[in-house]
Amino acid sequence: MSYDAVAFDREQNELVILDQTLLPGEERLLRLTDIGDICEAICSLRVRGAPAIGAAAAIAMAVAGGAAGDMPPADFRERMFLARDCLASTRPTAFDLFRALGEMADVLDTPGAGTAQLKKMLAGKAEEYIARSVDACRRIGENALTLLRDGDTLLTHCNAGRLAAVRYGTALAPVYVGAERGYRFKVYADETRPLLQGARLTAWELADAGIETVLICDSMASAVMAAGKIDAVVVGADTIAANGETANKIGTSAVAVLARHYGVPFYVCAPSTTVNPDCPDGAAITIEQRAAREITALWYAKPMAPESVTVFNPAFDITPAALITAIITENAVYPNNGGEFFGNSQTV
Amino acid sequence: MSYDAVAFDREQNELVILDQTLLPGEERLLRLTDIGDICEAICSLRVRGAPAIGAAAAIAMAVAGGAAGDMPPADFRERMFLARDCLASTRPTAFDLFRALGEMADVLDTPGAGTAQLKKMLAGKAEEYIARSVDACRRIGENALTLLRDGDTLLTHCNAGRLAAVRYGTALAPVYVGAERGYRFKVYADETRPLLQGARLTAWELADAGIETVLICDSMASAVMAAGKIDAVVVGADTIAANGETANKIGTSAVAVLARHYGVPFYVCAPSTTVNPDCPDGAAITIEQRAAREITALWYAKPMAPESVTVFNPAFDITPAALITAIITENAVYPNNGGEFFGNSQTV
Repeated sequence: MSYDAVAFDREQNELVILDQTLLPGEERLLRLTDIGDICEAICSLRVRGAPAIGAAAAIAMAVAGGAAGDMPPADFRERMFLARDCLASTRPTAFDLFRALGEMADVLDTPGAGTAQLKKMLAGKAEEYIARSVDACRRIGENALTLLRDGDTLLTHCNAGRLAAVRYGTALAPVYVGAERGYRFKVYADETRPLLQGARLTAWELADAGIETVLICDSMASAVMAAGKIDAVVVGADTIAANGETANKIGTSAVAVLARHYGVPFYVCAPSTTVNPDCPDGAAITIEQRAAREITALWYAKPMAPESVTVFNPAFDITPAALITAIITENAVYPNNGGEFFGNSQTV
Repeated sequence: MSYDAVAFDREQNELVILDQTLLPGEERLLRLTDIGDICEAICSLRVRGAPAIGAAAAIAMAVAGGAAGDMPPADFRERMFLARDCLASTRPTAFDLFRALGEMADVLDTPGAGTAQLKKMLAGKAEEYIARSVDACRRIGENALTLLRDGDTLLTHCNAGRLAAVRYGTALAPVYVGAERGYRFKVYADETRPLLQGARLTAWELADAGIETVLICDSMASAVMAAGKIDAVVVGADTIAANGETANKIGTSAVAVLARHYGVPFYVCAPSTTVNPDCPDGAAITIEQRAAREITALWYAKPMAPESVTVFNPAFDITPAALITAIITENAVYPNNGGEFFGNSQTV
């Protein structure tokens, strides 16, 4: 993978994403300009992972700006706010999305700026957002490496790797940054039902990078930990509440309970933009509910459950602070101090 | 479902099973006589679930006997031992299989019996085994009902229902016996990757019986328990060691850890034939390892993981005694007394 999973082609005014719904069978890059197409791509998980969604949204705003004709700044702003609202409606749990849209919308408030200037500023802001995101992921990897040893075997859930960010990933950032330094990690990847991001994406990108990987079903994490095979669990986050409670892919809380039971450290790796200081705790995080057919039919050649069955299909769950060993952002490792992570830090 | 999942047609000398690999799409009964076909049916999970495998093996021995020509008793015995060895090689973890084969082989030791008499005795023994199995499952249901309340919501993993036994099932026996008494239970069914016995079989048979059912991915059990929706977990068992440690479908130990964490009782329901008194603990139980393609490809229209990926695919895991609230057989409820279940009971 010689390219970023999310990129901004400023010259062509296009958002460039790898269509992740086609992996592992096909590597197809999509070049998108239309805001409807971009929203569809986010909704249907062609681009996914909180940092990647944030970057895609920032680029989408720049692209929407670039595609707009010449018009008075007030009209341009209105048009852009519409694009923002569309993008904000795609995925409710990824806080980076709202953070990125907020930053882009702030640009529009620049006093006295004309439309052409605003367009330029949006493009510049998107480029800055991307650069910051790459830098944050690299620093997450460096910070996480201080908690790991060369040769460790890690377990991860869902995909919080290169495909979930612009580069490096979050939970897998220590693996990639470590590989640059000659460290060798082994990774157990939960397949992550229903949409199999672990099997389709994590196993694919780790194999592509030459990292030793073992694919397991989500239900096998207990047996693997019981056998003493796992040195640490690393996961990403979609939202981190002010008290450290974390929303991440459904099943993350199960891995956290298992890690606690088996005495394995459980690390949440995320850019500081994932922390929502206005969200007091996990109960205040909106959990996206997704379609039943993701469980009963999607991906399959034939129905795998009775048509009439009732299905519960939350996309995320909440991991309580007590089960998290440390939260790792680009700024620091925040260890769990009696259920508190961020203490009096004003900024995470 | 107006028939048993496993039956003995003595007149036609056939083992009759519902082909569970075709569910939920198609209900097809298979009538088998050839021991090779029967072994294939057990290996490829056309009939599965420890009590059903035991019953199928008992019937298979009777059918193999019935199909044999006229020959001296010594030759007949040798032929039957071959059939037994074939059947014993199909699934290593289901202790009922070995129990049933042992009982059938014991018949062959009847001193002075001629071949015709041995054939008749094998058929009679198979019928007795089936009747005992049905009775055991009904009594498991009655015993389990003493621990549950009308209206309870249960969570189960894999399929330990009607399809896993001759009738009633084990973990689901209280649901069916309860329904006969007008109790209304609601059941959350883990889909149970990789082979989706929960989605394909449990959801199907519960819907067929008019029981309110919600299908979830295995990774969602934590969120469901965290929300306080589950009153008790009920699971079956493939082998129970003398100390109560239990081998059951991979992922069962994860559910047990979650149940402990969330304060939900965790009940193992199994016929006493599942207890292996010669097996001291879980570490002594052989865990069947299955093919990688069950995780990477099977059931799917297209590959769902990179072809080259390493896969770990154990069919079962061990639930430690400490995580089991009680073991329920047809004879009694054995509560967990400081990690001991069977105490000085000579027979379980």
